[in-house]
Amino acid sequence: MKKRLGPSDRLYPMPASLICGGTMDGADACAVAWMGICATNPPRVAIALRESRRTLELIRTTGTLTVNTPRADDAAVADFFGIVSGHQRDKFTESGWTLEPSAVVEAPRIAECPYQLECRVDQEVPLGSHVLLIAEVLESHAEEGVLDATGDKVDVGLLDPLVYIAGSREYRRLGEKVADAYTIGKTVG
Amino acid sequence: MKKRLGPSDRLYPMPASLICGGTMDGADACAVAWMGICATNPPRVAIALRESRRTLELIRTTGTLTVNTPRADDAAVADFFGIVSGHQRDKFTESGWTLEPSAVVEAPRIAECPYQLECRVDQEVPLGSHVLLIAEVLESHAEEGVLDATGDKVDVGLLDPLVYIAGSREYRRLGEKVADAYTIGKTVG
Repeated sequence: MKKRLGPSDRLYPMPASLICGGTMDGADACAVAWMGICATNPPRVAIALRESRRTLELIRTTGTLTVNTPRADDAAVADFFGIVSGHQRDKFTESGWTLEPSAVVEAPRIAECPYQLECRVDQEVPLGSHVLLIAEVLESHAEEGVLDATGDKVDVGLLDPLVYIAGSREYRRLGEKVADAYTIGKTVG
Repeated sequence: MKKRLGPSDRLYPMPASLICGGTMDGADACAVAWMGICATNPPRVAIALRESRRTLELIRTTGTLTVNTPRADDAAVADFFGIVSGHQRDKFTESGWTLEPSAVVEAPRIAECPYQLECRVDQEVPLGSHVLLIAEVLESHAEEGVLDATGDKVDVGLLDPLVYIAGSREYRRLGEKVADAYTIGKTVG
């Protein structure tokens, strides 16, 4: 038996990424769960940001941004980047987290995050409360310690990314592997 | 030390939702990981679909769709909905999964999924390989057995949603709670 819960902005699970804009001389970042990959060729990401975000202002100055995936163990700092406003406080100075230059775009990366995407904004879709940035992913980086045996792919168990759960407003880590995709489905039908 | 991995369409983690279009008399659904919430007021979701998907054709006939979250234990059926084409085969007949009418929109829900969103498409953003559907969430439903003690909110531990991991192409379940969001960050700075 199901219960009607009304219009909802909850989807399970969500990423807990830090979106960074600006330059090495002045940057801000904020925690964003409302995002996803949206195209393959070229790879693009769709990121929803409130118009009031200082990070958004800074993204617009260079037309570039980075997506930085924090470790589950760094939930406190990631949450800090979500609840504090960059208009009032310098999140990097206060958290002790640091910037590193990107390879391709002007927006810097967050050094403490083991997986990072460098992106250039292609278009903005205005959505009232939020603006949806559609950005091409030009480069990605991963800490060598989170790569699998091939050295070319992320091992998500080693990455141990932070996960956001809407509604109950909690952070979780990933759990056990359930099955191989594009394989287990062949047993059905 | 970080390694450059090139342009990437990988983000960690992703949802593993079944998007359903059509009517009770003829529906199709496909597994989609490239999606996210993109606005609050009204709540909206952004869903990337390949132009070739039969589900997309059916969504366009009514302008509505549903988002259905499978349980981690149902990885096999969810994967089946991803790897089989609705142009050739009837995924519902073959999997044994069933449709149930929606409360507000024409597109039906997938009865075996414990969390469901009813949506009306607001706009399409063409992105070459994919089209990004931006859809308003008009109603949500959850199985009573996955609600928390208040009876009004999903308990994500009980929901046990399927999670998709790009790159290694695997399904996982959620793991342990790490911290409370909007709280743990107050200990920083």
